[in-house]
Amino acid sequence: MKTIYFDHIAGNPLDPRVKEAMLPYLTDIFGNPQSMHSFGEQTREAIDEARAQVAQLINASSEELFFTASGTESNNFALKGLALANQSKGKHIVVSAIEHQSILHSAKFLEKLGFKISHVGVDKYGIVSRDELARQLTDETTLVSIMLANSEVGTIEPIAGLTGLVKEKGILFHCDAVAAVGNIPVDVNELRIDALSMAANQFYGPSGAAALYVRKGVRILPLLDGGIQEEGRRAGTENVPVIVGMGKAARLAWEEMPKRSEYLRSLRDSLIKELTNKIDYLYFTGHPENRLPHHASFCVEFIEGEAMLLSLSMEGMAVSSGSACTSRALKASHVLKAIGVGDALAQGSIVFSLGMSNAKKDIEYLTGAFPAIIDRLRKMSPLYTKHIQKKGDK
Amino acid sequence: MKTIYFDHIAGNPLDPRVKEAMLPYLTDIFGNPQSMHSFGEQTREAIDEARAQVAQLINASSEELFFTASGTESNNFALKGLALANQSKGKHIVVSAIEHQSILHSAKFLEKLGFKISHVGVDKYGIVSRDELARQLTDETTLVSIMLANSEVGTIEPIAGLTGLVKEKGILFHCDAVAAVGNIPVDVNELRIDALSMAANQFYGPSGAAALYVRKGVRILPLLDGGIQEEGRRAGTENVPVIVGMGKAARLAWEEMPKRSEYLRSLRDSLIKELTNKIDYLYFTGHPENRLPHHASFCVEFIEGEAMLLSLSMEGMAVSSGSACTSRALKASHVLKAIGVGDALAQGSIVFSLGMSNAKKDIEYLTGAFPAIIDRLRKMSPLYTKHIQKKGDK
Repeated sequence: MKTIYFDHIAGNPLDPRVKEAMLPYLTDIFGNPQSMHSFGEQTREAIDEARAQVAQLINASSEELFFTASGTESNNFALKGLALANQSKGKHIVVSAIEHQSILHSAKFLEKLGFKISHVGVDKYGIVSRDELARQLTDETTLVSIMLANSEVGTIEPIAGLTGLVKEKGILFHCDAVAAVGNIPVDVNELRIDALSMAANQFYGPSGAAALYVRKGVRILPLLDGGIQEEGRRAGTENVPVIVGMGKAARLAWEEMPKRSEYLRSLRDSLIKELTNKIDYLYFTGHPENRLPHHASFCVEFIEGEAMLLSLSMEGMAVSSGSACTSRALKASHVLKAIGVGDALAQGSIVFSLGMSNAKKDIEYLTGAFPAIIDRLRKMSPLYTKHIQKKGDK
Repeated sequence: MKTIYFDHIAGNPLDPRVKEAMLPYLTDIFGNPQSMHSFGEQTREAIDEARAQVAQLINASSEELFFTASGTESNNFALKGLALANQSKGKHIVVSAIEHQSILHSAKFLEKLGFKISHVGVDKYGIVSRDELARQLTDETTLVSIMLANSEVGTIEPIAGLTGLVKEKGILFHCDAVAAVGNIPVDVNELRIDALSMAANQFYGPSGAAALYVRKGVRILPLLDGGIQEEGRRAGTENVPVIVGMGKAARLAWEEMPKRSEYLRSLRDSLIKELTNKIDYLYFTGHPENRLPHHASFCVEFIEGEAMLLSLSMEGMAVSSGSACTSRALKASHVLKAIGVGDALAQGSIVFSLGMSNAKKDIEYLTGAFPAIIDRLRKMSPLYTKHIQKKGDK
């Protein structure tokens, strides 16, 4: 059976060029970068080069970048590390209502340690409310954390319009840019960001490679205490092969971003157009323009989400209902709730995230097969039958 | 130039069979294990298999094993997670004086949160004092953390003789077994351990793959908050290739341990014998019998440690002065201090950790070249010259 992958935001295949760059570090070059011998020197140099490549992608300096093992770790490191290191200034933190669970649950952890957490709401497109944010900032606020792009609805937040507000009060600004970096241009200086999370797998790099940018001079406590790696800010033996892979992936993303974006946007737009034309009671979610180029998301009415995903999977198409990190928890998404989607409709959530291995014919195959799947499933839905009868009665 | 690697405890080369097992997961099989489609199913199954393989190595059940990204992360997770989850019972923690920095610094972090930390001392071989431990346990003690084997002096602690003492008072016992698992037999039930840290790279598995064993029923808070991975105890997208590699490496270690130990012990013993015969003022560190089979450690008097390491490196031999995690900090080792080695002698610390790629001729090469290096360096040492003159005067 033909299989087509439309779930790139949950897990990207490795770019073959990235794999080639990594392979020597899986075999011949294996020294501990902290070791004071030639084996250690080799890997130390490789890490330095990767750090510079990743820094370039977000217009940072090498010494402002700290490698971690996941976007989740970067977010935990940022939220807990910035809050704890700066608590003498105040213990109030503001996060958006549509942050990833790694931010929201880190905030809950801090709440148990005596911090006060406020959640700033979003509009129907998922755009954070600037006015509400302004009202929430107090003299006690030390940290604001708002994401750059949301992986469930694809919306890109107008961060540049928010940081000014936050910075003029001397408050730190962290940005979860995991879904964004490598897919859209990100410049930490232009955006006036103090700390920024990113992960290699979002731009065809390996799993297990991620980073936290921390602006020079900003105080942060380690999440992982121990050795002197990463300037003492993140202990643990460096995972050299994936760090090298992240560097290579960052370099390729930096070079190829305009080309990739144009290609993915065109595929994505035709997917949106075709599905919107062919399927009734299909509601587009997220912002229509300010969204990730490879991201299309909808809620399908009169449908049970899990059945829809499994039916697509059985016909060879891999899609998701939202965040992979919570997909198997089977709870209604907090993101869809925040943009005002009701619980019933949220059950029909579906996210298509495209990648460079997708071709035009993949979109044609999907937009051909998907409406028939929806039809079949709806015919088994008592709610849909009732709705159609009611409509007929009028 | 011929290069010989004697620093396996800082970083092991990947077993080629482990690499083979990992490769498919670097290319074709890349789905997010949390995803509800066939791509996700494949990686979910691979993780399940790896978990069972790792569990078998320490005689645990799969559901008691949580994958992390490093031994350091496992240690942070254990110490902080167990202390915070059980603080209603008491806020006193006991650790040994020769623990890894990831334990000692995690304890310092907890101290800032109001926990009281006691350090139990060791004898001249690095063996933890049972009597001192007994005296330190109070009604407030909730957690004891003592390592299984020390990577700097090779000593294996008599854990089974300590856990009884701790368990009969209802206190939790964590064991940092990073240097031990895969190299010596470890059975969490026989040892009566509640939580145990391990890392794949210590037994020819990949970097970035580690685990924490947590006995069923023991309460622990996550270190990484976020998604529902690892039963909600360790958030972050699973690093599938390295987890698969850790499983394979665990399986191989389980099968081949007796053979490997015998081989390494024989190489190691001839190294110790030759160097002891050929070099004056060479002091063996750690326990003479109860030690890791691949580990030999010494302090060389009248020598500057960094010069010794660099001289060896220039002649193609990679060794270490102690823990890679602190090697470049250039501070005297807290482990050597704890076993009573003075600051001056500790500067001449040297650790040889052998691996399966080492052959008899490597040992011959080393034991041939090393004494001459020591001679050369000592001739440049004013302290040595003075010592020899004094000796001559007598």
